This record gives sequence, C-alpha cells and structure tokens, in this order.
Amino acid sequence: MLYFIGLGLGDTKDITVKGLEVIKQCSRVYLEAYTSILTVGKEALEEFYGRELILADRDMVEQEADEILKGADVGDVAFLVVGDPFGATTHSDLVLRAVQSGIQYRVIHNASIMNAVGCCGLQLYNFGETVSIVFWTDTWKPESFYDKIQRNRQNGMHTLCLLDIKVKEQSMENLMRGRRIYEPPRYMSVSQAAQQLLEIVQNRREREEDLAFSEDTVCVGLARVGGADQAIEAGTLQQLVSRDLGGPLHSLIVTGHLHPLELDMLRLFAVEPNALRDLKVADSSTYTS
Amino acid sequence: MLYFIGLGLGDTKDITVKGLEVIKQCSRVYLEAYTSILTVGKEALEEFYGRELILADRDMVEQEADEILKGADVGDVAFLVVGDPFGATTHSDLVLRAVQSGIQYRVIHNASIMNAVGCCGLQLYNFGETVSIVFWTDTWKPESFYDKIQRNRQNGMHTLCLLDIKVKEQSMENLMRGRRIYEPPRYMSVSQAAQQLLEIVQNRREREEDLAFSEDTVCVGLARVGGADQAIEAGTLQQLVSRDLGGPLHSLIVTGHLHPLELDMLRLFAVEPNALRDLKVADSSTYTS
Repeated sequence: MLYFIGLGLGDTKDITVKGLEVIKQCSRVYLEAYTSILTVGKEALEEFYGRELILADRDMVEQEADEILKGADVGDVAFLVVGDPFGATTHSDLVLRAVQSGIQYRVIHNASIMNAVGCCGLQLYNFGETVSIVFWTDTWKPESFYDKIQRNRQNGMHTLCLLDIKVKEQSMENLMRGRRIYEPPRYMSVSQAAQQLLEIVQNRREREEDLAFSEDTVCVGLARVGGADQAIEAGTLQQLVSRDLGGPLHSLIVTGHLHPLELDMLRLFAVEPNALRDLKVADSSTYTS
Repeated sequence: MLYFIGLGLGDTKDITVKGLEVIKQCSRVYLEAYTSILTVGKEALEEFYGRELILADRDMVEQEADEILKGADVGDVAFLVVGDPFGATTHSDLVLRAVQSGIQYRVIHNASIMNAVGCCGLQLYNFGETVSIVFWTDTWKPESFYDKIQRNRQNGMHTLCLLDIKVKEQSMENLMRGRRIYEPPRYMSVSQAAQQLLEIVQNRREREEDLAFSEDTVCVGLARVGGADQAIEAGTLQQLVSRDLGGPLHSLIVTGHLHPLELDMLRLFAVEPNALRDLKVADSSTYTS
C-alpha cells in the first residue's frame, strides 16, 4: 500500500494519530520537499517519528517514481506531504503510476492552506478561484493572476493568493555549466506580493483600464498559518506593502464582498486599531460600514 | 484558553497528535454536533480520548455561549468540530464572544471537506464558489444554487456542492404544540442532489433558458471522504441519479473545464468502465478527449 499522508501546517505534532501509526509501520518513508515547508525541519520530524526520512525533491518524484513505488505492492510505503496530499499541489501523477503498477493507495488527509485560511474569519465558501503569484524578474512580469482576482472580485468572491516558492534554483551560469550548485531558497512575502499587485494597479490606471481593486481594497496577510507563531494582518493593499510578517510561508487574500460578521473577524487582525473601522465605498463589492 | 480543535473527517484517529494532547489537558470538552458527523459516534470518541464530551447543539452554541466560555480565562476549554473549525461552517460567533470576554483562543486545524475533496483528482485551485444544495419540499424549491454553479461553469470552474443536513428537526405539529420531539436526522444523498439538479435543468430547458450544464455534464459523487469505506464515483449527472453511495455524509461536484490529468484521475472512479471514455463536447467547458 502506498500511503499519502498530510502533515498539516504547523510542527511535528500536527500529523494525525492515524498518520503517525502508519508511518511507524512503513518500510520506507519519503518526505515531499518542494512545494511547502513546515515550521520545523526534517530532523525534528525524524526524531518525533523515530524514523529516517528520504527527501523527495521534484526531480525524484518525476523521474524516479519507480524507486518510490518499489515494494509498495507487497509492503507499505509512505509519502509525506506538508499540508494535505491533495491541497495546493496534487500528487495525481504518483497516484496514477501506482494504480498502473497495480499498487493500492490510501490518502490520510490533513489541513492545508486551502482550508486553514478560514481562520482569518473569511468564509471558505465565499472564495473564488485560487491564484498563484510568481516572483517577477527584470524581464518577466506576468499579470495573469490579476485578471483572475479581478474576475473573483466582480463576482464578490475572495481570492486566496498562494505565494511563490523557489527551491533548488540554479543560477543561469551554474545551469549552463551543468554545476549542481543551488541558490538559497526564496519564499515570497506578503509585502512583496502586495507590492507586485500595487504595481499592476498603477500600470492599469495609467492605461486607464477598469480597476477591480485598488490601494484601498481590504487584504489579509497570513504567515505560518497553524503554527504557534502564526501572524494574520488585515488592512488595505497599500498598508500590507510595508508590513513584515516574519518567516515563511506567507499567503495573501484579496477580499471580495465582506459580510458584516467577516468584517468583525478581520478587525481582530487589523494592522492598526483604526484600520477597517471606516471603510470607504471604494468599489461596489467592498462592504460599507 | 479556548481551543477550537478540528477532528478531521474519518474516525477517532483522524485527530492530530496536538489536538489529542490538548483535549487531555482541558477541564471541559464540547463536541459541536449540528453541522457534520464523523463515521463514528460520540461514545467512540469518548473512549478514545478517555474523556467525557458535552454535546453542543446549535441552540447551546447560540444561546448558552457563556456556559461554554466559563473558566476559559483561567483554565483550558476545548470545542471540537468535525472537519476543520473554520471549514464549511465557521465558528466566528464563538471566537468573537471569547475575544470580547478577554479569553484567548487557539485553532488546531484539520482536514475539512473543503480541501479533502481534492482526493478525487480535481485540483482545488480550479474550484469556484462553494454552494449548498438544500432539501426541497412540496412548496419550496429554491434554485439559487443552480445559478452559482452556472457562474462557475461559465468561468470553467468546478463547483463543490455541500448537501443538506437536517438534524433536530421538529414536525410542524410538534413545533406548534411546543413538544420537544425531533424527527430522525436526514442527510441528502448524491442521488437526491443529482435528481434536484436534473429537475432544474429540465425546467429551464422547458423555459428555453441557456443551460450551463446538462444531463451529460461530468459530476463526481463523494461519500464518507477520509473514512476507510469512502466512495467516489464519477459519471454524468444523469448517471449519478441512480447510484447509491451508502451512508452519509455525501458531497457532489459539478465539474467545469477538465484538465487531461484531472480526467485521468476521474477515470479511476468512473461509475462504469466506459463512462468518461468518450466525452462529447456537450458544452464549451467540458474537456474533449
């Protein structure tokens, strides 16, 4: 049996009792390590489980899947994923390969950022499509995520923005020379994401396009959701540019229509006491208090 | 401290290690019991935790919140919720009351149906607004959920439909006579939900309205997600009407645009081997194989 086990979002103890039992009975335990991170590292997990973990990076999962599946038809192998195995990133490829090889699989779910963001008080069923905000470079500044947020806003929906993660990146020089030297990992912050969104707003305003949201739109920054030191800050997009929410991982929500109860919850996390107190009717989908 | 603890979706062992530790240290432990159910009952939870649980129905949470909060400023009280505390139903009211009373709170997340549906292979970031399908009566047949599904479909998005739960219902006679006699709980099945959707499709066709989906639209029925006996079936809306997925809880997904990898995953759960093999271009947002 191949077990896909979600680790949740915080630390070692966010695994489920069932997940922990399964890990202890498996012959090999892989840790997927390219789409997310816990607030603790591999060593802390190994100590807590009492098991050695094999790090599975993207190359391994894509190119050495047979290695992961080996023996799972007769014994048990576990594949650990931060969050939920079918959360922000799915592992459909590995599922399909297992099934094709006649290997049974089972999913042990856990919280993922896709549902845990509800802790800020915005209701999950009022979210539209989730978007990813990627790191801009000097020459590549895609704006496609803006259009998706715009469409959600026009329907009154909130948008969860997942922020870019760069791990195992190679510099152009190392890549060309075939040197396996990797840059330090980079995680986009709420401030960086807000800055990029603001730049798009300014560009579109100069081009006199319709704006579905602006500097004044209520946004929510979240960091290390589910961890003991999680941070949630609600304010305008402009305000979030200058906020520092600490270490990774960060997420950003652009709100749509705000229900009064949602607004009451957001005020618990206001960037400053008076923020969100007097909301302007900046646009039709922002709740007016 | 007031702890909101998610229990996940399956059985007793789907609680996190952290959640279980907290339960053992709390002076009182409430079990929210009106928005969802586990595949096991209160007694199984009590035995596993080694603790007595106080059932908190809707009336209690809304009218006797002070009772729940009592002592949480000096000691620890736990409020257990099937799924995630901020999943399909939020408990913002209780959070706000706690904060107003100067009581700190903490959330221990878990899987909820809102993220666990990813196990069918449809990608969570391709879902639009979540809708609720309510039980129709002879005289009350709302269609508002259809319009939301339609809007999602037009944007190529999948729609998760949460299906109605009726617990602690009183018959009109018992209600009028003030008798606290309750009807047996009712949980909408995938078949019932599909039947209601089909009726709306037929009504709108008679009225010659534009249809965003039809009998041939690919849908996914899910039952007891996360449980050992979970069932997932993918087929057309018409096919799901005659399927029996067993005991509660059920959910239904109306697909939007299907990515080839999503379709490969859905085929693992096809209602019959040939279903989903030859999809017609029934409408623009269905993937053509």
